[in-house]
Amino acid sequence: MTPAPSWTDLLAAREAQHLDELFELLRIPSVSTDPQRRTDVAAAAEWVRDRLQRAGVPVVDIVPTALHPVLIGEWIVDPAQPTVLIYGHYDVQPEDPVDLWTSPAFTPEVRDGMIFARGSSDMKGNLLTAVQGVEAVAEAHGGQPPINVKFIFEGEEEIGSPNLREAVRANRERLMADAVLSADGGQYGPDTPSLTASLKGLGGCQVNLRTANTDLHSGMFGAKVPNAVQSMVQLAASFHHADGRIAIDGFYDDVVDLTDEERAEIALVPEDEDALKARLDIDSLWGEPGWTAREREWGRPTLDLNGIWGGFQGDGIKTVTPSEAHLKITCRLVPNQTPEGVIDKIRKHVEANRPPGSTVEVVPLPGSAIPFAIDRYNPVHLAAKAVLSDLFGVDPVVTRAGGTIPATGIFQAELGIDTVNFAWSIPGSNAHAPNEWYRVEDYLRGRRGYAALMDYLAGAAG
Amino acid sequence: MTPAPSWTDLLAAREAQHLDELFELLRIPSVSTDPQRRTDVAAAAEWVRDRLQRAGVPVVDIVPTALHPVLIGEWIVDPAQPTVLIYGHYDVQPEDPVDLWTSPAFTPEVRDGMIFARGSSDMKGNLLTAVQGVEAVAEAHGGQPPINVKFIFEGEEEIGSPNLREAVRANRERLMADAVLSADGGQYGPDTPSLTASLKGLGGCQVNLRTANTDLHSGMFGAKVPNAVQSMVQLAASFHHADGRIAIDGFYDDVVDLTDEERAEIALVPEDEDALKARLDIDSLWGEPGWTAREREWGRPTLDLNGIWGGFQGDGIKTVTPSEAHLKITCRLVPNQTPEGVIDKIRKHVEANRPPGSTVEVVPLPGSAIPFAIDRYNPVHLAAKAVLSDLFGVDPVVTRAGGTIPATGIFQAELGIDTVNFAWSIPGSNAHAPNEWYRVEDYLRGRRGYAALMDYLAGAAG
Repeated sequence: MTPAPSWTDLLAAREAQHLDELFELLRIPSVSTDPQRRTDVAAAAEWVRDRLQRAGVPVVDIVPTALHPVLIGEWIVDPAQPTVLIYGHYDVQPEDPVDLWTSPAFTPEVRDGMIFARGSSDMKGNLLTAVQGVEAVAEAHGGQPPINVKFIFEGEEEIGSPNLREAVRANRERLMADAVLSADGGQYGPDTPSLTASLKGLGGCQVNLRTANTDLHSGMFGAKVPNAVQSMVQLAASFHHADGRIAIDGFYDDVVDLTDEERAEIALVPEDEDALKARLDIDSLWGEPGWTAREREWGRPTLDLNGIWGGFQGDGIKTVTPSEAHLKITCRLVPNQTPEGVIDKIRKHVEANRPPGSTVEVVPLPGSAIPFAIDRYNPVHLAAKAVLSDLFGVDPVVTRAGGTIPATGIFQAELGIDTVNFAWSIPGSNAHAPNEWYRVEDYLRGRRGYAALMDYLAGAAG
Repeated sequence: MTPAPSWTDLLAAREAQHLDELFELLRIPSVSTDPQRRTDVAAAAEWVRDRLQRAGVPVVDIVPTALHPVLIGEWIVDPAQPTVLIYGHYDVQPEDPVDLWTSPAFTPEVRDGMIFARGSSDMKGNLLTAVQGVEAVAEAHGGQPPINVKFIFEGEEEIGSPNLREAVRANRERLMADAVLSADGGQYGPDTPSLTASLKGLGGCQVNLRTANTDLHSGMFGAKVPNAVQSMVQLAASFHHADGRIAIDGFYDDVVDLTDEERAEIALVPEDEDALKARLDIDSLWGEPGWTAREREWGRPTLDLNGIWGGFQGDGIKTVTPSEAHLKITCRLVPNQTPEGVIDKIRKHVEANRPPGSTVEVVPLPGSAIPFAIDRYNPVHLAAKAVLSDLFGVDPVVTRAGGTIPATGIFQAELGIDTVNFAWSIPGSNAHAPNEWYRVEDYLRGRRGYAALMDYLAGAAG
């Protein structure tokens, strides 16, 4: 029996072929938001299914949803080994504005070591590194990967993953794993790998305030009766102390403060506050005192006023005493806050601070998400850290996200498992913008990352 | 030579004829806002011109403006006598919604002692009481009124008097008088006459606030950078103390406080605060402490937030950190405040309270008006008081208006003279609404009021 070649050698030998494959996939304009391109999205799903089958994945299904299908793959090799579920998406953003592209969005072209095409960075490149890496490690092990590998690739990430939760729930047993590896994401910088320690949750509500039962003439009533806009600005201003701290009773009660270790970790990846101010053309930052801007972004909850309206908004003058005003609020949450708990505290605050002569209601908004923080001793997280250190020659920085990623929350809620970011896109690569790019070297290295991680997890388990 | 009959007898003998005349005028649908009815508005102007001529007014001109004409009449009898300028308007509001009228809007009908027709209360009835009263007193004096009488009747009051100022300015010498008598207005109640002691002024501005140079993702930026809606609600809430007092530096500096005498006068005409709350469905009133609701309405300046907008106002949720917000403000002013002075103080307050990281601008809005208070010793005011006491058998209450009447400010600004309200419409008479009404008895008495006032002024001068 000829010994199997190493995955290193296999991947080295296939560089040109793998680039060709990426170009093939990039040529399919799988824009999920565009009804005209529904067949292109389906074609991309079929292309990926075929590619998974060619890689040797024994079970690959195209699972229909209300819109674009979800691909599920299963490669079960040994129940004693760990199981990872690799997540990604095969849909892309629209290419508008078309005129700003140097080369056509769906005609990939390499310039200066970068692959220019819509979807190169977000995330067809990352998706293929996972497939090709797993394929190589399987071949190196004689035809099967050293651990159990599952795949879930959706076609609706760019439109907010509206059908992913239902698909995950309906395929719960098939998808169960020890952890999710998200190929959707990126690294901190060109030479710096990263791991994502946490994502914020989200809870939102609308505050509706009413004073009199009709708008009134300000000359006859303005001096006497409550004004809904006046009442609303008083109420809206009461959510924060003057220094930026949230003034809602108990808002910080459930917050797990960043530890000294975490703050030290975050300090390795500081925000350049002066550069940020210059870029946004503002003379001051804002937020909760006692924390750096980066700490606030990554580790502190917020209450954001997203919109306000009431009374007269036209040109000129209207001497009205408005009777209604409205406010949109969202909160970014950290462990162990919950969307429901925070909305409840907002409701209590609004009721306790109801301006005299007004009626108020707090209506929760859809789109809530629970905050996510990975268990720092999660073995897949630790394995990813070791593999990235080896692959890049430097330790990964630990970043956090101020935003919310639907898929992570869905896997946490439906499968009860954590997601480890394992991806190669670089900040500034014009995801969602013209001239999206992805470095050839990141693509080729990324494949090795996936192969190495499979081996590492098998070794750690063994 | 036969002695001239008394105006009392003349007016008593002409009740049926004068009602017929009013009905004739009410049948002309002189809706100034309706381009289809421009000839009707012109027909009403001609009808009134003819009626003034029949009354004996020697000079009556229809003065064209950019839209509807102004009527000017002059009856100069003796330079040693006082001169009054009688103001009114011959245009009316639209009759919509037509279906809610019990009898057609332009087919006057008497029911229960009330004349139902569009324009009966506002203000063709009042206008004719002035013309018929002056006619009778002239006849009683042998063909000329005992004082000099001028008339200015416009056709654009219901659309905001856009061309009145220019017409007054262009006819300044012809219109000069000791005081204006406004036949546009009303009495306090069915059996209670009233005089208007003051009208508020008005100054308005828009506050524009900007933070970053673009809207931002709240997950990435909400914890770090200023939010325009947040900044605006802080700023907008800073205009008032918690108790309702205006917190702008120097806002009250120029305010002439109500005297004890004036407060006693106002206390005779209290607001029923419980009834007001019940009617507007609010559990509390609002405003500057230390003054009754009526005192605030009539005699205290206000800063009214008429409208606010910024950020996301749609359905659902949008996790945006807004970069712009806007606020509309108007102030109701009392002597000796000026619109320019108050806007300047608002600007200084906004600049001093500029939220960190924002830029702010204060843009004055058109439509300003200086506050007006009549000289309490104005002889026409005192004469009107005496005549009303005699006519009704009770002293008139002295009211004030929280609102601003363009004509009053125009006469003050262009002619430098005060306006005395001398009119008979009753609150609740459905001016601007379906089933507008005007009491026959008020109409008939009103004529006597005008005749009596002319005699009184001649006697006071003599």
